[in-house]
Amino acid sequence: MIKVVILGGGNVAIQLAKAFKNAKKVKLIQQYYRSKPDAFFLENNIATTQNITELRNADLYIIAISDDAIIEFSKKIIIQNKLVVHTSGSVSMQDLKCSANKGVFYPLQTISKQKKIKFKNIPICIEAEKDTDYKLLEKVAKSISKKVYAINSEQRKSLHVAAVFVNNFVNHLYKIGNDICEDKNVDFEILKPLIEETAKKIKSLKPKNVQTGPAKRNDQKTITKHLKLLTNKQQKMYTLLTDSILDTEEKD
Amino acid sequence: MIKVVILGGGNVAIQLAKAFKNAKKVKLIQQYYRSKPDAFFLENNIATTQNITELRNADLYIIAISDDAIIEFSKKIIIQNKLVVHTSGSVSMQDLKCSANKGVFYPLQTISKQKKIKFKNIPICIEAEKDTDYKLLEKVAKSISKKVYAINSEQRKSLHVAAVFVNNFVNHLYKIGNDICEDKNVDFEILKPLIEETAKKIKSLKPKNVQTGPAKRNDQKTITKHLKLLTNKQQKMYTLLTDSILDTEEKD
Repeated sequence: MIKVVILGGGNVAIQLAKAFKNAKKVKLIQQYYRSKPDAFFLENNIATTQNITELRNADLYIIAISDDAIIEFSKKIIIQNKLVVHTSGSVSMQDLKCSANKGVFYPLQTISKQKKIKFKNIPICIEAEKDTDYKLLEKVAKSISKKVYAINSEQRKSLHVAAVFVNNFVNHLYKIGNDICEDKNVDFEILKPLIEETAKKIKSLKPKNVQTGPAKRNDQKTITKHLKLLTNKQQKMYTLLTDSILDTEEKD
Repeated sequence: MIKVVILGGGNVAIQLAKAFKNAKKVKLIQQYYRSKPDAFFLENNIATTQNITELRNADLYIIAISDDAIIEFSKKIIIQNKLVVHTSGSVSMQDLKCSANKGVFYPLQTISKQKKIKFKNIPICIEAEKDTDYKLLEKVAKSISKKVYAINSEQRKSLHVAAVFVNNFVNHLYKIGNDICEDKNVDFEILKPLIEETAKKIKSLKPKNVQTGPAKRNDQKTITKHLKLLTNKQQKMYTLLTDSILDTEEKD
């Protein structure tokens, strides 16, 4: 059994803890918490501590706290010769400022505390300084997910910013679509099958090859009509995205 | 049986023809084509004509041609006292310049010729001048789809521009995400579960309520890090979308 300690009590910490509970090769032995221990650990009789000097002897220590706090927090960890990882997409492995062995265990998904997550299909991007540590991380990752990728710190940063485009920014475009519908008393439901189909398409096809719409066709008549229907801010967004699509098409 | 003539041979025309073939209450009796009749009509022994004065006697005439061509084409139709509709999201009902009764039959989905479409879950937005015509359109729409909506011309135009945001622009953001991954030799596959989850979430929740990411948290440190990883054009897009999210959050 691989013994794991989780440091933190946020969404990722709790969801990982729940996933490890059902994993065969992993045993979660302790949670380190700042303000109060999470109910999940208490209910499952997993040790908890608020004292960083009282961490138990484990094979792997997973820091699952907010990105901003990782560097400072890692300085307080006095573990030696064991593997310490963080779970962040935007922080380098070398930003871990402890003298333990370093690594990263980054599950790439929007994770909320409430909604139960099936880790099976969530990609886990792993990295470690040492080969043996990488193999340990791989075992742990594979115990909860089918999708495990070797990703170095530079690649992970790019993945993180790409994720902002395909998740955060995409959601904001959904929000603008919703605003436009609400303005005209149109049920946003009508757009949902289209949203689903748009996401489905790129499962098997490259986004570039399935681009459609007035910008793709350089249909200036429709573009002008559309702009008239939008608020100033929406117009700015529409224009930038349209120009960017036109630009892509011209290059080919 | 409701007798239908389809005018046009593009993606929407062919997909509608295929759907009507399996519909119980609808009989497709003729296709009008410009350059050559589509194989589907020949294989199914459906009459075809290239002569606009030889349209057969039907209950419904569906113009499924490109948006730009609808106004001019509709002037050539000499039908009286029958219902003529177009299938466009961006053209008004009143842009039909024939003396027949007017209506709109707008399936809201990205439709390509090759990929077989299941109309059952595609929203069809209908509009007609006359009540009896509306009822006829409703029957035809319900014969192929479970999702039929009464949408007037003004609402339809807004739907069409909203669709550009949630479909065409979203796909372009996928494309940018893909570019970023390719630049760093990262497999775009890793992002696909996130893309799927992002689209799934808004099935039951409002996009505004599930917004996440550095812009939502006003996490300037991460935003600055991200900008450094991007090309000039990507930076412009990142900044505009980030500002727009910040703006949304401030308002609340």
